[in-house]
Parts: sequence; structure tokens; C-alpha cells
Amino acid sequence: MPRISEKGLAMPASPIRKLVPYAEEAKRKGRKVYHLNIGQPDIPTPKEALDAVKNCDIKVVEYSHSAGIESYRRGLAKYYQNVGIDITHNDMIITAGGSEAITIAFLTCLNPGDEVIIPEPFYANYNGFAVQAGVVVKPIVSSIENDFALPPVEEFEKLITPKTKGIVICNPNNPTGYLYSKEELEQLATIVKKHDLYLFSDEVYREFCYDGNSHFSAMMLEGLENNVILMDSVSKRYSMCGVRIGALVTRNKEVIATAMKFAQARLSPPSFGQIAAEGALNTPAEYFKEVYDEYIKRRDFMVEALNKMEGVYCPKPKGAFYTVVKLPIDDSDKFAQWLLEHFEHNNQTVMLAPATGFYSTPGLGKNEVRIAYVLNVDDLKNAIECLDIALKQYPGRTL
Amino acid sequence: MPRISEKGLAMPASPIRKLVPYAEEAKRKGRKVYHLNIGQPDIPTPKEALDAVKNCDIKVVEYSHSAGIESYRRGLAKYYQNVGIDITHNDMIITAGGSEAITIAFLTCLNPGDEVIIPEPFYANYNGFAVQAGVVVKPIVSSIENDFALPPVEEFEKLITPKTKGIVICNPNNPTGYLYSKEELEQLATIVKKHDLYLFSDEVYREFCYDGNSHFSAMMLEGLENNVILMDSVSKRYSMCGVRIGALVTRNKEVIATAMKFAQARLSPPSFGQIAAEGALNTPAEYFKEVYDEYIKRRDFMVEALNKMEGVYCPKPKGAFYTVVKLPIDDSDKFAQWLLEHFEHNNQTVMLAPATGFYSTPGLGKNEVRIAYVLNVDDLKNAIECLDIALKQYPGRTL
Ligand SMILES: Cc1ncc(COP(=O)(O)O)c(C=O)c1O
Ligand SMILES: Cc1ncc(COP(=O)(O)O)c(C=O)c1O
Repeated sequence: MPRISEKGLAMPASPIRKLVPYAEEAKRKGRKVYHLNIGQPDIPTPKEALDAVKNCDIKVVEYSHSAGIESYRRGLAKYYQNVGIDITHNDMIITAGGSEAITIAFLTCLNPGDEVIIPEPFYANYNGFAVQAGVVVKPIVSSIENDFALPPVEEFEKLITPKTKGIVICNPNNPTGYLYSKEELEQLATIVKKHDLYLFSDEVYREFCYDGNSHFSAMMLEGLENNVILMDSVSKRYSMCGVRIGALVTRNKEVIATAMKFAQARLSPPSFGQIAAEGALNTPAEYFKEVYDEYIKRRDFMVEALNKMEGVYCPKPKGAFYTVVKLPIDDSDKFAQWLLEHFEHNNQTVMLAPATGFYSTPGLGKNEVRIAYVLNVDDLKNAIECLDIALKQYPGRTL
Repeated sequence: MPRISEKGLAMPASPIRKLVPYAEEAKRKGRKVYHLNIGQPDIPTPKEALDAVKNCDIKVVEYSHSAGIESYRRGLAKYYQNVGIDITHNDMIITAGGSEAITIAFLTCLNPGDEVIIPEPFYANYNGFAVQAGVVVKPIVSSIENDFALPPVEEFEKLITPKTKGIVICNPNNPTGYLYSKEELEQLATIVKKHDLYLFSDEVYREFCYDGNSHFSAMMLEGLENNVILMDSVSKRYSMCGVRIGALVTRNKEVIATAMKFAQARLSPPSFGQIAAEGALNTPAEYFKEVYDEYIKRRDFMVEALNKMEGVYCPKPKGAFYTVVKLPIDDSDKFAQWLLEHFEHNNQTVMLAPATGFYSTPGLGKNEVRIAYVLNVDDLKNAIECLDIALKQYPGRTL
């Protein structure tokens, strides 16, 4: 039997995946499982997007341009201009989700053995994309003690070696919900400039900024035209994760030209997805207002309820729809499994994402979990009640 | 300015791409350009597929299972069983086109520096996928003198080194239209078994077999359960290239489990595409009959017309919708450009794919072009008439 590749062996399995059989078993037993572990919002997809697909009159579903349908790219460029990112439809390549934008960005910019610095905890799939490109992730700890703010520039400096080729940020952040300020980004810009690095900016949660904060995109940093690569997606913006449409955006012409070769090899991004995404550009402002209000309600309820629990600390996230919470537990992997395997309250339980999966440094995140507030408030109430009771019963409680 | 990656520099640009500006210029001048260069069929997508998308009642376009929607996988497994490939829905991962199936297969099975043998001329994007995985392509010449039959086993043996990890075939073949027989595949199986290689079988043109020949899939080879990886797609089968749905299929459990990690990193294949593909499973037999009749008509017309021209040789392809034709010319790249830049007949011209782009060995394919018969017979007639006249006027004619 021929052998599996080294990359195949090195590819991380989703940390949540180990829990899936336990969740399935719990459901088989008739238990209601509240999924606080996933990034799949329950918010309806805008009608404008769904109707665009329903009403499109296509006879042959053809390949689109490898960079994406031109009318969609032009529309998307307008969207960016409206949020203050001044680019044209030639500065982007439409991709199969933000995921493909990240893959193509890494392949275009990084050599095997190159290092990228990423503040941890970070989106776990960056590990997978790094393995695919043969890139080494150098984590830099952002701590719950500082509500996961950007680590100081000096800490970044310490990690820089001749192999450092880029910094990856996610803003607003998954898993922490932290929203980087303009000042933090400008600090980051100094290192990026000094060492002539790439700055890969994952902004797929751009629309989810709370408490009057506006989003400052890395694309707005001055003097970094050739350094910044924006990786974007319509998955969360319009709650249509399944359409698989994202974008790689940069003013660096050489990067676009090279990324285009990767885009051509895979022929084109999904046509129906692009039609939905182009339709979604007409989503009225009220839609976003409603979504905003809903998430604020969920977040405020959740953060307050969590912080009331003994030994629990939950920063108040200013963006995205996640938060990383500190719990009085010995081991978040064990706790998450125990919740599914041994716990129930009124025949209900909760599925959490152990924060260990978001740290690259071994041992970190053992007393933290990521909670996604993608459930309505009634469900969140039940879920949080379960969690409260579970924390009191859990044998590995540390208080 | 930070540097582009070595892979980025090594990625081949599409050979046809160099011709695109000339084609655009010709069109700007009001010239009608017949595209014999592309693999985008003009055949309508089945109503069943389009209706499935129009009528689906989705409120939230969610991520699907990373391996694909289970009902679609079960339906697809039935499709395979009906064509004599005995597998279950657990032996496959639904991908973003055949393209992603190939990418994931290479990443799962091959290490940087590993070699794969591919009969040339071959689908040019294999080069791009190989660069992405850091894999070295070892071409083995299949010659127009033998109508592009599989090279003898001894020729493969000569290329085998300790680094050889797999053989890639495309059956029916793009660009040659050659359909490998059961006997040829069984010969190939002996080397695959002897050296315990992977056999990557690209069968995206499975439905396009002519003259009463049926398709013998590599998945039908006995004793190669752990070696054969099928890379498939609905793009051509249902003329819906834009839905971006393919599949990686294998009985090798370890490969599936590893490929699944790559699939999870990119979250899921396109949802609308999967809905279309599931709908397409109900395409009635008449659809395929009509498509078959149409392609036979086109092929027969084209092959006959080409072989009537002085100095032209066109094998009669038994599959797909391409053929590689030998022309009395000095240089197919120059000829293709000349056609767009300097030729016109009744204000019409033709765009061809120089066969050089399908050969890996430098210098090969200089007097060959690939012709796709994806136009209706009336257009084909005009195109072939243009070609006939052009060949007589072309300054680089070798006869
Ligand atoms: C931080 C972050 N980046 C990228 C992605 C990729 O999303 P998609 O490929 O659906 O655009 C996700 C999805 O959850 C994410 O959380
Ligand atoms: C031989 C071959 N393999 C794979 C593909 C990839 O097609 P897709 O990604 O649309 O499934 C093509 C497309 O033309 C092809 O010709």
C-alpha cells in the first residue's frame, strides 16, 4: 500500500472533531445539545442573495472568469470603496470562500520553511493552510488578562528571524472577538515596514463591530500597498457560508498576477455563489441593523451571565460573534467531552470548543473555551444555564 | 517589497492566455472568432439540475458537511454503482470541481520532490497542481503516430526511479480524445502493482465515449483498491462547469481519512453546486442520448473535414470532445497568434490551442494543435473553412 504524504500526516484534524462522536451519542440518547462550538450563524441569508439565484436565467452554467465575474468584481470594489478601502476590480481575485483566499495568498507569497507570526489564540484552520504551504507558524501569545489585545511590538520583534516572511491577523478576531484598533494596526505597520513583511489580514468578520466601533482595515494603512493582503469572505457578512465565495484583495500587482496563475489552474470560483454574492450587494441597511441588534442582545446577555458565574471570566468582545472564556476547570478538552458524555440538565447539554485548539503553544488554553453566540437568546439562556450547573458538578473543577 | 514565492514564480501561466489579448483585439476589430480552444461546452445544463437550484427552499445557505451533503454522496454512490464502480458514499469526498479533487489527491499522497509519470500531451493544469504540491512531472510521450495510445509498459518502466510515487492518467483523454481500453489499463495495473504506486485516474469525461465503446474505469481494476484514486467532476457530464463540483473517490481508507483533513480545512464544497449536482442525478437518459448524437455529429464532420486538408492528420477520437491534430506548420504558437492577428476570411477567424501547452517535453507539439468540438456543426463548418484557407496562406506553412 503506497504511503500517505508527510503533509497529509501533519495536517491537523479539527480539534472539535474528537467531540463529534460524543455529541452524536448524546443526541442518540434523545438529549438536546446546544452548539456553542460552531461558527455557522442562524441568521437568514438576505433575500436579495437568494432571489438572485432563484431568478437567474442561465441555460448553461459556464466557468466564470478565473478572477471572478467582472460585474461582481466591480460591485465588490464599490462595496470596498464604501467602507473606505480604495481599490478597483483589478485588485482582487474572487475565491472559493475566504479559505481559498488564504490558501492562494500563502502559496503566492510564502516558501516552504518560511515563518509567519500569528497572535494566538487563532483560527485553527490557519494551521492546515500553513501545512499545505509548508509554512511554519510562530505564535505570539495574546492573553485573556489583556482581553486579547495585540501583543506589544517588542514581542513581535523577538520572534523575527531571517525566515520571517509575514504576519497574519484576524480582525475582528475569531476566536477572541477582539477588534484591533487603528492604533494597534499602526503599531503593527511599523514592524511590517521595518522588516518588509507581508501582512495577511483576515477580515471576514468586518461587518461585526460593536459599541460604536468602526472597523479599521489593514488596507487603510499607508505606505503598505505592496505588503497588505486582505483575505475576505461573504460567508459571515451575509450568513451564506455555503455559497463559498471569498476574495483575495491587494494593491500589490505582482501578487495579483501570481495569485491569478493559481486561480487559473483551478479554473473558476462557483458561479451560483457569485450570483448570490452579487445579489447580496443590494442587501438593505436594515438587514445589517437587525443582525447587529440581534448579536448585541446575544453578546450582552451571554457576557453578563458568564461573568456572574464563580471563577468565570469573559472579556466583552467588540467584534465577530465569538468569545474566549476562562473557566474554573482543569482541562477544556476533558470538560467539553464530559459535558457531552456525562452531563445533562433537563435532558439538555452544551457543546463547547476547547480553546486548546486555537493555541499553537502546547498547554495554553486548558482553562479556556470558545463560545460562539450564534444561537437565539432563548437557546443561549438554556445553554448558559446548563453550563452554570455543569461547572458546579464537573469533577475537574479547580475552585 | 516582499518577494513572491518560488512556487508562485514556477506556476505556469495558461498557454492560451498569451493569445487572449490577440483574440480581444480581433473582436474589437469586429471580427468573429470561433473558439476551438476551450473546454466549455455549449450544451444546455439539464433542467433537473437548474430546477433543483431554483426550487430549493433554503433560508440560510449553510456550510455543508466537509465531505459533501450526505444525500448527494449517497446519490452519487448509486451513480457509480450503475456504471459498474462498486463504492459507497464513505469512499468519496465532494470537492470544488475535479480541480480540487486533483489538488487534494496530490497533497494527500505525494511529497515535495516525488515524481509522477504522465503520458503527454496532458491536461496543462496538471503542471499547476504539481507545482502546488512540489511534485515533479515525468512525461512519457504518447504519439500521434499511434493515435495517442498508452505507451508500452517498458517505456513506463524506464522512467521509474525511487522517487516515482504515482502515475496520472486522463481517460477519456483531454487533449487527445483517446479512450484507454480495458487491456491498456490492465497493462498499466501491472506496473502500478509491481512498484506499489498510486494510480490517479482523471475520468471527468467518462460520459463521452463513442462508437459503442464503453468506459473502463481504473476503479474496476482488481487488486488495486489501495492504489487507485479517481478524480471526477460534474462539469462536463452535465455541462455545468460553473457549479464547481467534483469528487475524490477511492477505496483506500487512509487516503480518504487524510483527504478529509484537507477538506475540513477549507470547510465545505459549494452548497448550490451540490444541490444542482444532486438534481442532475435525475437527468433522463434521453439527455445523454441527445448530447451523444450531437458530439458524434460534430466529431465526424470535423475529423473528416480535417483529414481532407493537405498535410493534416486528425486521429478519430473515441472519447471526450477534443482532438490533437497535426498541421503542416512550423510553430503552433505562432500559427495560433497569426490566425488572430493577421488572418481573416469573411471577417471571421479561429482560435486554437497550440499543443505545445500540453507537452512537458520542450519542442514537442510544435506542429500540433488541440481542437475542441464544443461548437455546433454550422459554426464548426465556418471555423474549419477558415482553418483550411488559413493553412494555405500561413507564411510558416511547411508543405
Ligand atoms: C477567521 C476566519 N477566517 C476564514 C474563515 C473561512 O471562511 P470561508 O471559507 O467560509 O470564507 C473563517 C470561517 O469560519 C474564519 O472564522
Ligand atoms: C482533464 C481534465 N481534468 C480536470 C478538469 C477540471 O475540471 P473541473 O475542475 O471543472 O471539474 C478538466 C477541465 O477542463 C479537464 O479537462
